[in-house]
Amino acid sequence: MYEGVVQDLIDELGRLPGVGPKSAQRIAFHLLQADPADVRRLADVLIEVKQRVKFCSICFNVSEEEQCRICRDPRRDPTVLCVVEEYKDVVAIERTREFKGRYHVLGGAISPIDGIGPDQLRIRELLPRLADGTVVEVILATDPNLEGEATATYLTRMLRTLEVRVSRLASGLPVGGDLEYADEVTLGRAFAGRRSAE
Amino acid sequence: MYEGVVQDLIDELGRLPGVGPKSAQRIAFHLLQADPADVRRLADVLIEVKQRVKFCSICFNVSEEEQCRICRDPRRDPTVLCVVEEYKDVVAIERTREFKGRYHVLGGAISPIDGIGPDQLRIRELLPRLADGTVVEVILATDPNLEGEATATYLTRMLRTLEVRVSRLASGLPVGGDLEYADEVTLGRAFAGRRSAE
Repeated sequence: MYEGVVQDLIDELGRLPGVGPKSAQRIAFHLLQADPADVRRLADVLIEVKQRVKFCSICFNVSEEEQCRICRDPRRDPTVLCVVEEYKDVVAIERTREFKGRYHVLGGAISPIDGIGPDQLRIRELLPRLADGTVVEVILATDPNLEGEATATYLTRMLRTLEVRVSRLASGLPVGGDLEYADEVTLGRAFAGRRSAE
Repeated sequence: MYEGVVQDLIDELGRLPGVGPKSAQRIAFHLLQADPADVRRLADVLIEVKQRVKFCSICFNVSEEEQCRICRDPRRDPTVLCVVEEYKDVVAIERTREFKGRYHVLGGAISPIDGIGPDQLRIRELLPRLADGTVVEVILATDPNLEGEATATYLTRMLRTLEVRVSRLASGLPVGGDLEYADEVTLGRAFAGRRSAE
């Protein structure tokens, strides 16, 4: 329907997550009329990000260096390791400023339906990090959904034989939420995990 | 919060229309893990589209040639000219297969609030196209909103002195819609423009 390269652009944009055919069209038309320098900048940063962004050789976090900022930081506690699914989880946890330890980024979660088993994740690479006894606690901070829970269960079993404390993030009511809107699983967990009132 | 170039990518993506901060993040993370060849293809098509896509020298439609497909097509009726705001309107009208004439793409609509007056649009370029008397009808197919109506009104006045019929697209109830859900302006127009039943 569109002139060749315009249709190519719409097709490429439509492959991005959350960009449907209508949005792809809208973005393409915007780009057609945009300043060529702006479009060039987007194209350049796309290429640059693939050239420069690597994964940290220790924790597999996103990094522009051989080792990521957190692994390079001597102030981070080497005795606590937080296992997350993705880079974005690292960013979310860093934002809380609650966690001072280090990370291990799995690169996803176990999901048989998507063909992702333990071998497709950075699970094997976790064991050498626990070998010298520096790490005393592993916090499993996978997503509180089916895949995340399956991954945490798998890791819990795997780490059972090691001399390391394994913990999970607390489940419960989200702060600022309404009790009546909580789903029954969350509400059930909030009951099961109740604390003594101060 | 993110490693330098990742944040740059999120920023650039966030400038696209309809892409909020959350979507920009989501797309950026997708691209981080995507096949470098796929990302390269998107970057290439972005550059290509700005290099190859020009605007037709006659009607200002999007075109990879000096003149667009429609202006080059001798089967298109040169006596009817349809004035639209944007390239996407050309595509929408072409899809109906109802219109066999030619186009004039204004490049937007009059919108004082956005600083767009007649001089920012391809309005001046419309007059020479009507000079030799080939065109007998100009169909104003601007959007049925405030800016589109203002633009149509402006053009109607401008063309009044010329020997050319000026028409507007019909307003009324959308086909397949429910009368009760039509807004009052649309319903009012549908009454005003009522046809005799066959």
